[in-house]
Amino acid sequence: MEYTRENAPEILSEAKQQYEKYLSMRLNLNMSRGKPAPDQLSLSSGLLDAINGKTIFNVNGNDYRNYGILDGIPEAKEMFASLCGVRTSQICVMGNSSLNIMYDMVQRGMQFGYSGEKPMNAQKNLKWLCPSPGYDRHFSVTELFGFELICVPMTENGPDMDVVEEYVKDETVKGIWCVPKYSNPQGYVYSDETVERFARLQPAAKDFRIYWDNAYGVHFLDEDVPLLNLLNEAEKYGNEDLVFMFGSTSKISFAGSGVAYICCSEKNMAQLTRLLSFQTIGHDKINQYAHVLYYKNADGIREHMKKMADILRPKFLKVFEVLEKEGKGLMKWTVPKGGYFISCDLPCGTAKRTVELARQAGVIFTGAGATYPYKKDPNDSNVRIAPSYPPVNELGVAMSVFCCCAKIAWAEKELFC
Amino acid sequence: MEYTRENAPEILSEAKQQYEKYLSMRLNLNMSRGKPAPDQLSLSSGLLDAINGKTIFNVNGNDYRNYGILDGIPEAKEMFASLCGVRTSQICVMGNSSLNIMYDMVQRGMQFGYSGEKPMNAQKNLKWLCPSPGYDRHFSVTELFGFELICVPMTENGPDMDVVEEYVKDETVKGIWCVPKYSNPQGYVYSDETVERFARLQPAAKDFRIYWDNAYGVHFLDEDVPLLNLLNEAEKYGNEDLVFMFGSTSKISFAGSGVAYICCSEKNMAQLTRLLSFQTIGHDKINQYAHVLYYKNADGIREHMKKMADILRPKFLKVFEVLEKEGKGLMKWTVPKGGYFISCDLPCGTAKRTVELARQAGVIFTGAGATYPYKKDPNDSNVRIAPSYPPVNELGVAMSVFCCCAKIAWAEKELFC
Repeated sequence: MEYTRENAPEILSEAKQQYEKYLSMRLNLNMSRGKPAPDQLSLSSGLLDAINGKTIFNVNGNDYRNYGILDGIPEAKEMFASLCGVRTSQICVMGNSSLNIMYDMVQRGMQFGYSGEKPMNAQKNLKWLCPSPGYDRHFSVTELFGFELICVPMTENGPDMDVVEEYVKDETVKGIWCVPKYSNPQGYVYSDETVERFARLQPAAKDFRIYWDNAYGVHFLDEDVPLLNLLNEAEKYGNEDLVFMFGSTSKISFAGSGVAYICCSEKNMAQLTRLLSFQTIGHDKINQYAHVLYYKNADGIREHMKKMADILRPKFLKVFEVLEKEGKGLMKWTVPKGGYFISCDLPCGTAKRTVELARQAGVIFTGAGATYPYKKDPNDSNVRIAPSYPPVNELGVAMSVFCCCAKIAWAEKELFC
Repeated sequence: MEYTRENAPEILSEAKQQYEKYLSMRLNLNMSRGKPAPDQLSLSSGLLDAINGKTIFNVNGNDYRNYGILDGIPEAKEMFASLCGVRTSQICVMGNSSLNIMYDMVQRGMQFGYSGEKPMNAQKNLKWLCPSPGYDRHFSVTELFGFELICVPMTENGPDMDVVEEYVKDETVKGIWCVPKYSNPQGYVYSDETVERFARLQPAAKDFRIYWDNAYGVHFLDEDVPLLNLLNEAEKYGNEDLVFMFGSTSKISFAGSGVAYICCSEKNMAQLTRLLSFQTIGHDKINQYAHVLYYKNADGIREHMKKMADILRPKFLKVFEVLEKEGKGLMKWTVPKGGYFISCDLPCGTAKRTVELARQAGVIFTGAGATYPYKKDPNDSNVRIAPSYPPVNELGVAMSVFCCCAKIAWAEKELFC
């Protein structure tokens, strides 16, 4: 049945009947966060056997149980540098959270400044570019530090670079959040042209930085999709100081106990490690070493991610299947080749109501608006779907609930607004 | 032989002969940092067996491998709260480094402010109290953030509280560094009166904080020496918001891979966890859980520390023995009942030269001056001795070198300055 005004009463009545049934099922499902499922975590159980009380931690004169080695153990730097396609001098392997690294990098810019510029705390009217829809935790960090968040439209090829290039002419614009591969939430991969234009970017602010959160760099569902290496490309134009690249094993090994890292130019690295030397004597090297012993090298990680894809693929397919069957004509969704999310655009003005109806039926989705700066979706249209955590059968139910609620929200608006 | 001017030529000549012998031994010893020795680390090898690929991480509905639980797993909060004598609502168990927590707390005060006051970045002429001699890394953090560091004399009972109480009348004084138990470097334990006076402190600045780094809370050498609980005492006077207490297992389990925590009032905790929720999704809960499974509870940690004491005690005794035999009359040293350091006061104006002579003979001591703000010891007298890392026999040699160098430095000064 087509979604026309004439059909709205019938669609509403049918959907409401269905909704009553869902209510009676007393569901309790959560599709709100990109959280690995238990079986994904168990894939790395062997990592916990890679280290034990008999492990020799004395490597090349360093005891990995002791203090020291600020920038990560050489074996971990080697493995992740290879995975990221950078030199070992361009990587610092740290603790369990790349979000923590990103937050700290923003904080360092505020407190100490970058590229010899004044600390951003001593500058006025700070602004930050936020390709939207995007990752709520990114936006929140820069909101906390008082940046004005500026929406940049997303396209299938990445942020609209015409808009980015225009905004960076303003020297109060200090950075941009990017999830370049299997973007959160659409699953888009930035095109070569987009990466090239980032590499050649000429921001007015010397302390402008591209926060390149490659959270899903090896998180393909079938074939891997290549992404140009921004740090290498930027180097060709002498622009390497613009780039902070981040990554972690949070969605490779353990979400809470992985290893995170930052890649940047040697010049930025010198400032980072100097400041870091005040903050800590070193990160958890035993956990870094466990990761190295278990995955061996970058290829080991890629092999591991094939098994991960086998777990995630059926979940994405289930979501596509239900959307295709029950959402077609009403909503539009992305079909990512990797990552953790599917982005769904509902008719304007119905996302909040849809998510609220689903919540009342016991199915939690990411809050409508969360994918936009200040959690305000100007169209009240976008919902992020996170298929990783629930089992496939629950996913099917949750997505049916979602489509049912979307129908109600649309019909209500059509008829009563 | 007494250290008089008349005896100086003979003392110098004998010491120089001895020094030549040390040079010919081509020593390579390091007594500079409070770093656990390998056998201390191996005491906790069982911790690495406490967790393996078959461990059940699903506890009370939480998967400790996954994201979440910002303030630490309940079992770890319970164990460390009991160890610290605080309520579980007053503790946040975090990552591997208490220095990192302290740095971040200073940074939060700079960026966001405490007790509703303006961020310290927006205030002027900031000052910080530094009981001296003290811990170089503490002083460096507040120096980095631009505080003027103010020396407060240390006594056997803790910082000179008359001086502290006088300084805090100045509202630009924002904090004080304390190592209240087995202080770094003297090994002093703050007296009940000192703790009481801290608990009743009336600083002019509402955002003043006592940074109470209880790094050696259970690090006794023989019998434990009791320390009053500052947070509890302060609460009696409605002063609990003044107190940040820190601790870690860096010198209980693994120096680089322990678990660190902060204890503070519930009001401060609410601000901390709010800000923390922007910075990370949670710390390494697998490592927290391993610590709980291995040590079981606070008593388990105390039992473990008896074995630690058995390793450390002979090292301290060796240092005392050599100082008694070869340093008496020339220098003064502390005789701590716990902790990681011995503080040695050389004749004024000879510490730098002594440490430099030892370095040339292949024995590294903590840089002279390092125990003072800006690394400037006004008397050029204090040297921190860290006996933990070298084996006992090497310690003996290192301390003999130290005494020999101190004699040369003294005699040179006596004769040629």
